[in-house]
Amino acid sequence: MTPKNYAKKLGLPPGTLIYTGKEKNHFEISILDYDENNFGEIQEIDVEASFSFKDSPTVSWINIIGLHNTEAIQKIGKYYGIHPLSLEDILNIHQRPKIDHFDTYNFIVLKMLTYNQESCEIESEQVSIIFGKNYVLTFQEKSGDVFDSLRSRIKAANGIIRKSGSEYLVYAIIDAIVDHYFLILEHLDENLEELESEVVSKPSLETVQKINQLKKNLITMRKSIWPLRELLAKLLRSEFVLESSVIYFRDVYDHTVQIIDIIESLRDISSGILDVYLSSVSNKTNEIMKTLTIIATIFIPLTFIVGIYGMNFAHMPELEWEFGYPFVLFLMAGMVITMIFYFKKKKWF
Amino acid sequence: MTPKNYAKKLGLPPGTLIYTGKEKNHFEISILDYDENNFGEIQEIDVEASFSFKDSPTVSWINIIGLHNTEAIQKIGKYYGIHPLSLEDILNIHQRPKIDHFDTYNFIVLKMLTYNQESCEIESEQVSIIFGKNYVLTFQEKSGDVFDSLRSRIKAANGIIRKSGSEYLVYAIIDAIVDHYFLILEHLDENLEELESEVVSKPSLETVQKINQLKKNLITMRKSIWPLRELLAKLLRSEFVLESSVIYFRDVYDHTVQIIDIIESLRDISSGILDVYLSSVSNKTNEIMKTLTIIATIFIPLTFIVGIYGMNFAHMPELEWEFGYPFVLFLMAGMVITMIFYFKKKKWF
Amino acid sequence: MTPKNYAKKLGLPPGTLIYTGKEKNHFEISILDYDENNFGEIQEIDVEASFSFKDSPTVSWINIIGLHNTEAIQKIGKYYGIHPLSLEDILNIHQRPKIDHFDTYNFIVLKMLTYNQESCEIESEQVSIIFGKNYVLTFQEKSGDVFDSLRSRIKAANGIIRKSGSEYLVYAIIDAIVDHYFLILEHLDENLEELESEVVSKPSLETVQKINQLKKNLITMRKSIWPLRELLAKLLRSEFVLESSVIYFRDVYDHTVQIIDIIESLRDISSGILDVYLSSVSNKTNEIMKTLTIIATIFIPLTFIVGIYGMNFAHMPELEWEFGYPFVLFLMAGMVITMIFYFKKKKWF
Amino acid sequence: MTPKNYAKKLGLPPGTLIYTGKEKNHFEISILDYDENNFGEIQEIDVEASFSFKDSPTVSWINIIGLHNTEAIQKIGKYYGIHPLSLEDILNIHQRPKIDHFDTYNFIVLKMLTYNQESCEIESEQVSIIFGKNYVLTFQEKSGDVFDSLRSRIKAANGIIRKSGSEYLVYAIIDAIVDHYFLILEHLDENLEELESEVVSKPSLETVQKINQLKKNLITMRKSIWPLRELLAKLLRSEFVLESSVIYFRDVYDHTVQIIDIIESLRDISSGILDVYLSSVSNKTNEIMKTLTIIATIFIPLTFIVGIYGMNFAHMPELEWEFGYPFVLFLMAGMVITMIFYFKKKKWF
Amino acid sequence: MTPKNYAKKLGLPPGTLIYTGKEKNHFEISILDYDENNFGEIQEIDVEASFSFKDSPTVSWINIIGLHNTEAIQKIGKYYGIHPLSLEDILNIHQRPKIDHFDTYNFIVLKMLTYNQESCEIESEQVSIIFGKNYVLTFQEKSGDVFDSLRSRIKAANGIIRKSGSEYLVYAIIDAIVDHYFLILEHLDENLEELESEVVSKPSLETVQKINQLKKNLITMRKSIWPLRELLAKLLRSEFVLESSVIYFRDVYDHTVQIIDIIESLRDISSGILDVYLSSVSNKTNEIMKTLTIIATIFIPLTFIVGIYGMNFAHMPELEWEFGYPFVLFLMAGMVITMIFYFKKKKWF
Repeated sequence: MTPKNYAKKLGLPPGTLIYTGKEKNHFEISILDYDENNFGEIQEIDVEASFSFKDSPTVSWINIIGLHNTEAIQKIGKYYGIHPLSLEDILNIHQRPKIDHFDTYNFIVLKMLTYNQESCEIESEQVSIIFGKNYVLTFQEKSGDVFDSLRSRIKAANGIIRKSGSEYLVYAIIDAIVDHYFLILEHLDENLEELESEVVSKPSLETVQKINQLKKNLITMRKSIWPLRELLAKLLRSEFVLESSVIYFRDVYDHTVQIIDIIESLRDISSGILDVYLSSVSNKTNEIMKTLTIIATIFIPLTFIVGIYGMNFAHMPELEWEFGYPFVLFLMAGMVITMIFYFKKKKWF
Repeated sequence: MTPKNYAKKLGLPPGTLIYTGKEKNHFEISILDYDENNFGEIQEIDVEASFSFKDSPTVSWINIIGLHNTEAIQKIGKYYGIHPLSLEDILNIHQRPKIDHFDTYNFIVLKMLTYNQESCEIESEQVSIIFGKNYVLTFQEKSGDVFDSLRSRIKAANGIIRKSGSEYLVYAIIDAIVDHYFLILEHLDENLEELESEVVSKPSLETVQKINQLKKNLITMRKSIWPLRELLAKLLRSEFVLESSVIYFRDVYDHTVQIIDIIESLRDISSGILDVYLSSVSNKTNEIMKTLTIIATIFIPLTFIVGIYGMNFAHMPELEWEFGYPFVLFLMAGMVITMIFYFKKKKWF
Repeated sequence: MTPKNYAKKLGLPPGTLIYTGKEKNHFEISILDYDENNFGEIQEIDVEASFSFKDSPTVSWINIIGLHNTEAIQKIGKYYGIHPLSLEDILNIHQRPKIDHFDTYNFIVLKMLTYNQESCEIESEQVSIIFGKNYVLTFQEKSGDVFDSLRSRIKAANGIIRKSGSEYLVYAIIDAIVDHYFLILEHLDENLEELESEVVSKPSLETVQKINQLKKNLITMRKSIWPLRELLAKLLRSEFVLESSVIYFRDVYDHTVQIIDIIESLRDISSGILDVYLSSVSNKTNEIMKTLTIIATIFIPLTFIVGIYGMNFAHMPELEWEFGYPFVLFLMAGMVITMIFYFKKKKWF
Repeated sequence: MTPKNYAKKLGLPPGTLIYTGKEKNHFEISILDYDENNFGEIQEIDVEASFSFKDSPTVSWINIIGLHNTEAIQKIGKYYGIHPLSLEDILNIHQRPKIDHFDTYNFIVLKMLTYNQESCEIESEQVSIIFGKNYVLTFQEKSGDVFDSLRSRIKAANGIIRKSGSEYLVYAIIDAIVDHYFLILEHLDENLEELESEVVSKPSLETVQKINQLKKNLITMRKSIWPLRELLAKLLRSEFVLESSVIYFRDVYDHTVQIIDIIESLRDISSGILDVYLSSVSNKTNEIMKTLTIIATIFIPLTFIVGIYGMNFAHMPELEWEFGYPFVLFLMAGMVITMIFYFKKKKWF
Repeated sequence: MTPKNYAKKLGLPPGTLIYTGKEKNHFEISILDYDENNFGEIQEIDVEASFSFKDSPTVSWINIIGLHNTEAIQKIGKYYGIHPLSLEDILNIHQRPKIDHFDTYNFIVLKMLTYNQESCEIESEQVSIIFGKNYVLTFQEKSGDVFDSLRSRIKAANGIIRKSGSEYLVYAIIDAIVDHYFLILEHLDENLEELESEVVSKPSLETVQKINQLKKNLITMRKSIWPLRELLAKLLRSEFVLESSVIYFRDVYDHTVQIIDIIESLRDISSGILDVYLSSVSNKTNEIMKTLTIIATIFIPLTFIVGIYGMNFAHMPELEWEFGYPFVLFLMAGMVITMIFYFKKKKWF
């Protein structure tokens, strides 16, 4: 959510490489290299050693973790012929999801979202993809991602991925990210259902804050998914997607549209819950007021009457009557009964 | 509403056949085979036996119930040359309504909605349609659908359906589903009218919950009907609808537009009812407060006065006056009358 | 508003003629036949007798009242070569306003609105228009319409109508209907002005209900006028309007745009009135609370003080003081004055 | 705002000349005739006498005041070859701003807005412009307009107006009207700033009504400016504006866009003020309730205690104790201190 | 925000040079003149002396501060061949951001925003850019801008700016302004986070005013950034941007889209905070009411009972009972316990 650290780059020439995030611990390059018949996996390789994969006929997925190492990224950028503005976008983790087409490569930025179960917040990590004929570079801020099952699919030669080129790998990466959005939506949906029953059973100010947190999460998701949808629409319209891949990219495009639909529905429903909450609070205030009013309306006049006969006037004939006391008691009992009837009629009970 | 079970498929390669729903009891294939002069109906046929209908010159409506039997569906898919992504969409019951055109067949996904009178919720079931030259495959999750009258129309050779091809059958299926939407709208509309009078006669927190449930139902409908409208618009723009069918598809398209209109109106009206509810609660609070204030404002000062003459000072001249007691009574009566005038003037009665 | 009776047609083949309305009393065909020099008016003519006007060189306006007589309408449809779907639309009074172009005729559906002064509700009646070279068929549910002045204009040869063809008559019919919308807007506008002063002078729950009724009326109008605007835009874009008529249809199109503008303004204003109402109720609650609080804050402490000196302790020195009683009275007077100052400072008076 | 008097024209043939406004006092034709070197001004000229200016080579601005004189306007219409529908639009002062292109002239309708400082309402007057090669006809309802400085500019040969044709004059007229919108926006903006401080310093129900009036004024402006923007966009797209004038019309178009921007901002801000108002009222109610609760919570229990020792039981040992009275006083003082601590902790002070 | 001073220009011919702002102290022209190898900086140069830079082969950035000096600006306009309408736009500081293409130069107006930390308001200053082949004129109202780092980049020959033409300089100026928008968004975002915790910890009316101020700031930003986005989109579509610059302008365009995204998110979140505030106030009122009701409901009936036995009737048998007093005390203790149970059951504690 926070556009923090934008200022870090203020006033620098475009193309200056400055990492705007906070993760600074780990730098690692790992490579998955495969074609229909071969498969190789290399972890923690040197920057220079990774260059040999660029022109190999096999598909090479070079995953770079740790954007704080600007020096290494600059080297990679130089070797692969990446435009300085693209490199800048890779390092600026506040980049809006987008696609840029260059002569020698295509450049995609998107957001990998994960749901933090403890804080109930959505965490966002930027993933940048550079892909050319036989290679796919992916840049992540920190280790830990949503690609594990994709990696094992490649290893196990599951599905058509081993038979397909780099473009299909790009699709598979985007698909893995988008699929994870559904998982988050499930969390939010469960969240919403809990809130729906909480708002009726025991509404409290905390409920409102939870509804608000949910809305913020939906805003975060929407901010990531709308540009992603545009990106895919642009990709589908462009001429640089192979005919055979179009159906796959359209499939993931359909998913983004569906995610937007669900987000809008959840927003509408969460607004409805807020209405129920407010009504519920109003009702409670009403109940409390009724109790107070019934008690006060019954006893205040009675207290007045007993007050009268507590006065010390020398001449108060009623006080001397033999049945004065029981008479007053009966009088008051009559008043109570009358009032109870009145409240019944007004449906206050 | 619930995007539940999305996670089931997470990380699997595209085209993996996994049923994401919960219905697992019943699997059945039934066939309606007809042309202008002939009509045949076969129930509970074997998967393999059903294949013979693919290339028959008659129109064959092959209805498959039970998506949990992925093996059977895989067989059907193979025989009919259905793309793995289409098969995946058939089994993923959270699919957004859409249309895909393939070389040998067209693929339509839509939502059959039914209104559960008890829970006042709309239930959604996915219906997938695959149609080629002379056959229409429909896939449903469970038995029970809205096509009964369509089936008897075919049997009875009612209307032009027996004289028309598979495309007209597809139209008739979509039309049956969309017509059922109107039935649901009627339920919701009745619901709304009840709420409209309930909110005035006896508003309670339950009323708000009912309004909310209604809104959720409208959101569910909107989520199904908007993509359906797009789907039909796309179908009408496409070249693969016969000239003679265009008028029928346009008719059902007009219906979807009308349904969207009605949904938007119902949403606006239900928001209006919520306003009335909130105003009604505010008014009630006001009434209660008035009662309390009138009682308290009249009796609290009186109680104070009688309190004065209940004090035990040795020297209180009024207490010895012969007409002290009646004088105080008159004084208090005067105060009550004044206050009643005051409240009348303020229009509190 | 009510989508009632949609279900009536459920499951029937398209083109089945079923009247979905409730008016069943009156069936009548009347004809106005004219050209520049001649004018004839025939009332209560037989169905078959009316057929002769189809191919006459004069312009014939054939008005059919009473949609329950499906048999007669079927006959007319057959003679004029009307597509079964058009006939179905004529009888289904919940049809959305639309225009369809057929080879031999054009088909327009629209809504004639009238304002019921007693119930303050807008009533809607469907008017269908079929027009060909020299004839215009109009279908209404019941007698009573907004065309009286149009009829007298034709009779009196007022304006250019007698010199123009059937297309101009269609324009004149639509224009009469749209003009009547302005009349309804005037009613609603007066309504709104009354509400604007009522909400200030004597706001009550009934005011909210009236605002709500007004909003519902605006929703009803919007539901009729938006499709009508689309219809006219489509008509103007189409090639089947004579060059000479374009200016007239554009004029009525401009009117629909203006009506939409006014509806939106009235909606915004009525929302504003609701805000004033809610503020006014809050203010009143505030006033009531102030009164209560002032009274209670002044008298409750006083009552406590007099209570002290009403205690029966054996040893209470103040009670024996000669000026104990006046001293307490002065003390209490001082307290009252202090509190009144306090409330003045807080601007509660 | 008021769509009053629409009904006046109901049922009349199109092109019937009926003035729908209320101003009926003054009719006057005045002419400004100029070219680069010559300038003439004629006031209160006869209808027929004005005709001579139509074909003069100089630019003639013929201003007609008083639409109730339909006879004169009919004459002018006939002489200048104005289409009956245009004439009707001139007289119908509820016309939506629009532009129509005819073979011999162009026709523009727009709204001249003025701000009534007393009623704080925006008043709208319709200005219609007919212009051909060398003449510009303007029609107003009543005398008094925003063109005085334009007239003196022409007289003084200020700027390029005297060197330009009729089209530039039309631009200058529209520009004068649009410039005046800015003046009104200034008034509304001042209004808004006053309300912004009033809502904090002394919020009352009147504040809400003022906010509402402001919103209504913004609605009125929006209703005039949106169609004006469309009108100018249409004008710029059309081929019948001279190349040299385009830059001027684009300039005034930019102004309309800016006015719309400002109106939307003011609407958003005024909604914000309403939020502040409602919060302020809630806060006040809260304050009042706190005062009441503190007083009641402190004194009601105390009054109960003194009530105990006011009872007249024969056997109440405490009453006989020597220090019973001071003990009770200390007890009550202790209770008061405890409660004050409690309220402090709850931050009620 | 304020459209103040619009009226200043009312009624003047277009192209009249009137400065509509308030800054009148300082007038200064300063020049940065450079190419790949040379760099010169001149401050406080004469108007006439600055003319020599127009046709020099080096890129000249001529910055003019102080729009009140209309005479000097007129001279510059004349020398550079600037259209009177452009000059007018430069001086009218309420101009909406826009781009105009002329034969000899391009004209851009935009808003430089700065955040005033003290008043928490966004301040807007208009920057106009006129650029031709080798020169860029910038016009500012007052000294102090966001270009310092850009100037040092030019001086230090940092990045590609010294190797590029005037168009790249224009990009760099716009980029500097847009980058500063991000800085303001950071301020607003911090602001929002403070409000988010304030609304929970100690909500007050001031919180609402701060939320409102934040919303106003967002409105101000939106009013500047939307037209800027349009401007850049127009620039990118136009043919007068060099191929090599397109990527840079697209980059800044992407930034404007991102800023709009963030603004919309912040607006949604701030609305959510208002909801929390209102709920929090309702809850507080509820708490207060509960306290009052509990106290009153417990003690008012007790006070009535002790009142009974404070009556002075001659015949009240209970008063003579030996255990009358302890019996009454026990009775009242029982009542208190019962009520506490009742309130516990209602979950009021």
